[in-house]
Amino acid sequence: MKLSKRIKEAQFSPIRKFYTYANQAKKKGIKVYHLNIGQPDIKAPNSFFEAIKEFKEEIIKYAPSEGIEILREAWFKYYRRKGYDIEMEDVLVTTAGSEALIFSFFSVADEGDEVLVFEPFYTNYNTFAKLAGLKLVPVPTSINEDFKLPDIKVIERYITSKTRAILYASPNNPTGKVYSKEEIEGLIELSKKHKLFIIADEVYREFVYGNIKHHSILEFEEASEFSLVTDSVSKRYSLCGARIGCIVTRNKELRENILKLSQARLSSPLIEQYACARVINEEDEFIEESRKEYEKRKETAMKILLNNEKVFSFEPHGAFYTMVELKGIDGEDFTKFLLADFNKDKKTTMVAPATGFYVSAGKGKNEIRIAFVLNPKDLEDALNILLEGLEEYRKRK
Amino acid sequence: MKLSKRIKEAQFSPIRKFYTYANQAKKKGIKVYHLNIGQPDIKAPNSFFEAIKEFKEEIIKYAPSEGIEILREAWFKYYRRKGYDIEMEDVLVTTAGSEALIFSFFSVADEGDEVLVFEPFYTNYNTFAKLAGLKLVPVPTSINEDFKLPDIKVIERYITSKTRAILYASPNNPTGKVYSKEEIEGLIELSKKHKLFIIADEVYREFVYGNIKHHSILEFEEASEFSLVTDSVSKRYSLCGARIGCIVTRNKELRENILKLSQARLSSPLIEQYACARVINEEDEFIEESRKEYEKRKETAMKILLNNEKVFSFEPHGAFYTMVELKGIDGEDFTKFLLADFNKDKKTTMVAPATGFYVSAGKGKNEIRIAFVLNPKDLEDALNILLEGLEEYRKRK
Repeated sequence: MKLSKRIKEAQFSPIRKFYTYANQAKKKGIKVYHLNIGQPDIKAPNSFFEAIKEFKEEIIKYAPSEGIEILREAWFKYYRRKGYDIEMEDVLVTTAGSEALIFSFFSVADEGDEVLVFEPFYTNYNTFAKLAGLKLVPVPTSINEDFKLPDIKVIERYITSKTRAILYASPNNPTGKVYSKEEIEGLIELSKKHKLFIIADEVYREFVYGNIKHHSILEFEEASEFSLVTDSVSKRYSLCGARIGCIVTRNKELRENILKLSQARLSSPLIEQYACARVINEEDEFIEESRKEYEKRKETAMKILLNNEKVFSFEPHGAFYTMVELKGIDGEDFTKFLLADFNKDKKTTMVAPATGFYVSAGKGKNEIRIAFVLNPKDLEDALNILLEGLEEYRKRK
Repeated sequence: MKLSKRIKEAQFSPIRKFYTYANQAKKKGIKVYHLNIGQPDIKAPNSFFEAIKEFKEEIIKYAPSEGIEILREAWFKYYRRKGYDIEMEDVLVTTAGSEALIFSFFSVADEGDEVLVFEPFYTNYNTFAKLAGLKLVPVPTSINEDFKLPDIKVIERYITSKTRAILYASPNNPTGKVYSKEEIEGLIELSKKHKLFIIADEVYREFVYGNIKHHSILEFEEASEFSLVTDSVSKRYSLCGARIGCIVTRNKELRENILKLSQARLSSPLIEQYACARVINEEDEFIEESRKEYEKRKETAMKILLNNEKVFSFEPHGAFYTMVELKGIDGEDFTKFLLADFNKDKKTTMVAPATGFYVSAGKGKNEIRIAFVLNPKDLEDALNILLEGLEEYRKRK
C-alpha cells in the first residue's frame, strides 16, 4: 500500500521543524517570543461570547450549506458598508478562508492547469494547489522594489495556454504590501485579455496603515464576472479558531457551482456562524481599534528595523507582517540559531524563515518574516533580542 | 473565463430539486414529514451546552492542526472503551466526517486512480472523489440479497492496476446494512493480496439493532497498516452542526502525511472541539438511549413496511435508514408526486429517491431511502401517508 504521490509531495508547514528547537528552548526555561505566526494576541470581541451564551437551539442541526441566513446577511451588510455593490446571495459562507481558497482553486481550474501567484506568497497556497492538482506559477516580486507588481508586460510572459487564474493577497501575507488601484487595474486588464479568473485573498483587508488605501476587487465592476474574494473572520476579529469565512462573487454560475462543494461537505460550524453574524454586525469599532493597535506595533517595529544597519526591511502597508532581509545571513540557519544557541536574559525570539514563502529555488534565503502580533513592549524586546542575536551570529560564524 | 470541467461535472445534492416541491407544498399549508434526510430530531446532550458555556479562553486561537489534546484523548479513550487497541496519536481530529473522507481520498490514491465502493452508497462520496480526481468503481449489492457483499471472487473482478483502495460504510448509509465479520475479513484478504487501503466509514457505528454486532476495522490488527476509520460526532450525539470528526489509523506514515493537509487548513473549530471532548467523555449513556430510540423507530417502520404488499423493504441492521423497493414505481416520480400532487389531511411525506445513491445507469430507479429521524408517532403517520400515496399514485398513472 503506497500513499499517493501528491500527499508525499505536499509539504509540512515550513515552520514545523523549528518548533522542535523552540520547545527545547522552553524546556531550558527560555522565554520564546513568537513573531513567527499570525496568531493575534488581541481578545475576541465580547459580542462573540455573548452570542455563544445566548445560542438557544437544542438540536445542533446541519446549517444550510451556503451558510445561515443571518450570517450571509451580516457579511452582505458589511460589504455594503464598505461601499461594494453586492447582493446577499453573492456571499457563500465557508469554513474559514482555507476552505474558501480550496473551493476557489477547484472551481476555476482543472488538474494540470496553471495559476499565477506573486512570490513570495502564503505557504498554504502550495498545499491547496496540490489538493486541486494545480500548478502555481510564481511571478517574482522583490523586497528591493517594495514588493511592487511587475509591469503588465512582464506578468503577461508567465501566461500560457494553461493559465486559468491570477491569485493575489492584498494586504499581502507575508510581505505586508497593499496593491495600488493601478496594480489591480493591470491585473483586471490581463484577466480580461486572457480570460482568467482573479482570486483576491482579502482576509487582511481591514489592516491598512498610514495613507495607504486598500482597494478590494469588489470595487471594480468590470471584474464582476471573473473575480471572487476569499475572506475570513480569523484575524479581523481575533477569531482564528472559529473557522468562519466566505467567498464573495457576483458570477452567478461560479457561485452555483461552488455550492455543489458546499453541499457535499454539508455545513460550516453552526454555533460559530451564529456568533460571527453578531460580531460582523456589531464590531466595526473593534476592527478600527485593532487596526490602530497593529499600526502602533508596526511603528514600534519600524522604528527599530528601518534604522538599523544590520537588516533591510520593507515598511508594510498593511496586514501584520514584514519581511526583513538579513544582508547575507541565511534565514533558516539564523532562525535555528536564535532558538538553539542564543538567548538574552533567558529570552529569545522565533521568526519565520522566508524560504517557506518562495517556491523558486534559492529565493528568499536571506529573508525572514516577522509578525507583529505582540504588544509594543514585548515586540520591542523581541526585536532587540533578534538584532543582538544577529550580531552574535555574525561574530560566531 | 470558463469554470473547471470538474466543478461542472460535480453534482448538486440529488435531493435538491425536490425541495422546490416541498417548499411549494409548505406554502400551500401542507405539513411535510421529512424522511428524506439524516437530520436527527434528538436533542444534543446537555454536556455539550454546558461545556460551551464554560469555555473560558478570551482569544479564539487556532487549535493545533491535529486537534486539541483533550479531544484527541477523549476519542482515544472512547475507542479503548470499545476495546480497540489504538494509541492517542492514532487519532487526527477533522472538521467532521466530510473532511475525514476528503483527506483520506487524497492520501491513498492519485488522480485517475480507482477506489472500489459498494453500490448503493452515500452520495457525497461522488463529490469527494471528484475533488480528489478519483474514479469510484461501484461494486453492486442488491436489496434482493439483503445488500450483502458479493463473494470475494466477484469483488476481485473489479480490481484493476489502478485500484488503490476499498471504501465501505458500516453500518451503511443508505441501506442500513452492517457487514459481518466474515465480509470484512474478505475485504482485508483482498486488500492484502492487492495492496489496497481500506477506508471504513464508521460514523453510524453505535446504531446497531437486534442481534447484529458491529465490527470495526479497528478490531482487525492484521489490517492496521492499510486501514483507516472515518468517524464523526454528528449523528451519534445529534451534533451535525458541530463539524467535528476524526481519522483513526495505526499507519504512522499515513497519519504523518495527512497531517500536512490538516496543517494547510490550520485548525478545526476550537469551541466545538472543546465541547465535543466533554461529550465524548461523558455521554456513553446518551448514545445507548439514542440507539434504543432509533431501534424503536426502526421497529415502528418495519411493522408497517415489512407487512405491506405494496413495497419490498430491507430490514436494516443499523444506521437509521432503510431502502424501500416500490415494485415497479419510479422513485423520483413518486417523490415528486407525494410533494406536488398528494396530501392526506394536509400532510405529506418527503423521501429520498434512491437513484442518488447509485451511479450505474438505471440502478435503483424503483427504490427510495427512508430515514427514521422522527419520533415513532410521526414516523408511523408519515409512512402510512406514503403508502396511501403509493396507492393513489398507482390509480392515477
